[in-house]
Amino acid sequence: MVKHETRIRVQYYETDAMGIVHHSNYIRYFETARTEFFRSRGYSYDRMEKSGVYMPVLTVSAEYKAAILYDEEISVICWIEKLKGASLSLGYEVRNAHTGELHAKGTSSHGFTDLKLKPVRLKRVAPEIYGVLKAAAE
Amino acid sequence: MVKHETRIRVQYYETDAMGIVHHSNYIRYFETARTEFFRSRGYSYDRMEKSGVYMPVLTVSAEYKAAILYDEEISVICWIEKLKGASLSLGYEVRNAHTGELHAKGTSSHGFTDLKLKPVRLKRVAPEIYGVLKAAAE
Amino acid sequence: MVKHETRIRVQYYETDAMGIVHHSNYIRYFETARTEFFRSRGYSYDRMEKSGVYMPVLTVSAEYKAAILYDEEISVICWIEKLKGASLSLGYEVRNAHTGELHAKGTSSHGFTDLKLKPVRLKRVAPEIYGVLKAAAE
Amino acid sequence: MVKHETRIRVQYYETDAMGIVHHSNYIRYFETARTEFFRSRGYSYDRMEKSGVYMPVLTVSAEYKAAILYDEEISVICWIEKLKGASLSLGYEVRNAHTGELHAKGTSSHGFTDLKLKPVRLKRVAPEIYGVLKAAAE
Repeated sequence: MVKHETRIRVQYYETDAMGIVHHSNYIRYFETARTEFFRSRGYSYDRMEKSGVYMPVLTVSAEYKAAILYDEEISVICWIEKLKGASLSLGYEVRNAHTGELHAKGTSSHGFTDLKLKPVRLKRVAPEIYGVLKAAAE
Repeated sequence: MVKHETRIRVQYYETDAMGIVHHSNYIRYFETARTEFFRSRGYSYDRMEKSGVYMPVLTVSAEYKAAILYDEEISVICWIEKLKGASLSLGYEVRNAHTGELHAKGTSSHGFTDLKLKPVRLKRVAPEIYGVLKAAAE
Repeated sequence: MVKHETRIRVQYYETDAMGIVHHSNYIRYFETARTEFFRSRGYSYDRMEKSGVYMPVLTVSAEYKAAILYDEEISVICWIEKLKGASLSLGYEVRNAHTGELHAKGTSSHGFTDLKLKPVRLKRVAPEIYGVLKAAAE
Repeated sequence: MVKHETRIRVQYYETDAMGIVHHSNYIRYFETARTEFFRSRGYSYDRMEKSGVYMPVLTVSAEYKAAILYDEEISVICWIEKLKGASLSLGYEVRNAHTGELHAKGTSSHGFTDLKLKPVRLKRVAPEIYGVLKAAAE
């Protein structure tokens, strides 16, 4: 299974009055991580959308383990948990890029749809992308 | 069980290039809803923090059902799913404020801690708040 | 001159590690305020866009006077500083909704364009909207 | 004069329903750019704050020239426009990292203060930082 790592420098505007990264921003880090994961496989979102494939978010979850501080460099690891004909589940881990300390774990699931958000079977409409994801999932 | 409703007008800066509210913002709507829920019970976050009680987020989840559009008025319903000695689970529903259409469901769980994020038993450190939450949970 | 006031409750996710509202969020408050200002004149953005009129931001500025704290209720006052054939300047003041203390002042300027962001003369393409804005500016 | 360049990959959550980066996010890009500019001079914000020097934002302005699209790689150039005893002005340009196309120009000004936001003269409280900034400004 491919585990892709994306490094992110925490920004001041992502912190809150508790002096730590606001919990909603982890959901954004997950998005950045899966975007870079797909890019690393040769399919930027842009290229996927040009192939007519959209991946709206169906569910998202996060489990917070340890606060992230301002200016910390984090490493977000992303992998495919399950690839099905019309949907995809991803797993995430957020760690300190240097110490490896675990900050959070998460998941997201996505449908494959066309531009009008009508579900499609990825294998049929974009077999090449399906193959690439299949390979990364194994 | 008390189900508290908070109305929110969707802002342009909350939309994304798909023309809909970005999924990360639902997590922020949940926060607004639980803040107003606590305020409605007589305990604004501010007042809780002044009582020395903090409620860091332990987990969060969202299930997206239907896109929210710009300028839509939404209604976020929040209730206590489970109150324990040192933690709390909340449930959420996001609906169109006028048609009642369900946009999303969600949950969050929180620990009770002191300022230094050390877990505390709410019943002991703030029995009055515990009583108010207990009543709202039933 | 019409001065329209919009009340906003400051959210936790808008604060930063200094314990105050992050300065970038004032620009978002300005947007909320001008949206409500236009709505109060009978022209929500939605309705303007349906009339084929877009108002992209050309410039924005803010002058910060006093920090805004979490959970504060603020009042954002918005008015038309100058209405021209193809553009519009707006002024803003951010105040505490209760004490009136001045937190910030700001401006934004906007072009009138069609959907493809090609400049248009508002007076010609949407004389009714032009009339309403003209009246509010005087 | 030192002109420091920071590369930023535009995120999906930074776009809006017009399909472009929301104008408020440029203010955040400016912050990222000045943070990296200071880091490149040996003074991360963290290190400055540990030296007891804070730099609250006094004013900010942006002039929008051309929309930024999702997934674009931008380059934000930041430099010192004026260094005074108790304040600092910075200039910014946002360009496409590959074509160099100008997206926006901006400015920000900052006071030097202590932790309690009381103005201080940088030259006196932190002569080393003052010297570094002076050199970068020339």
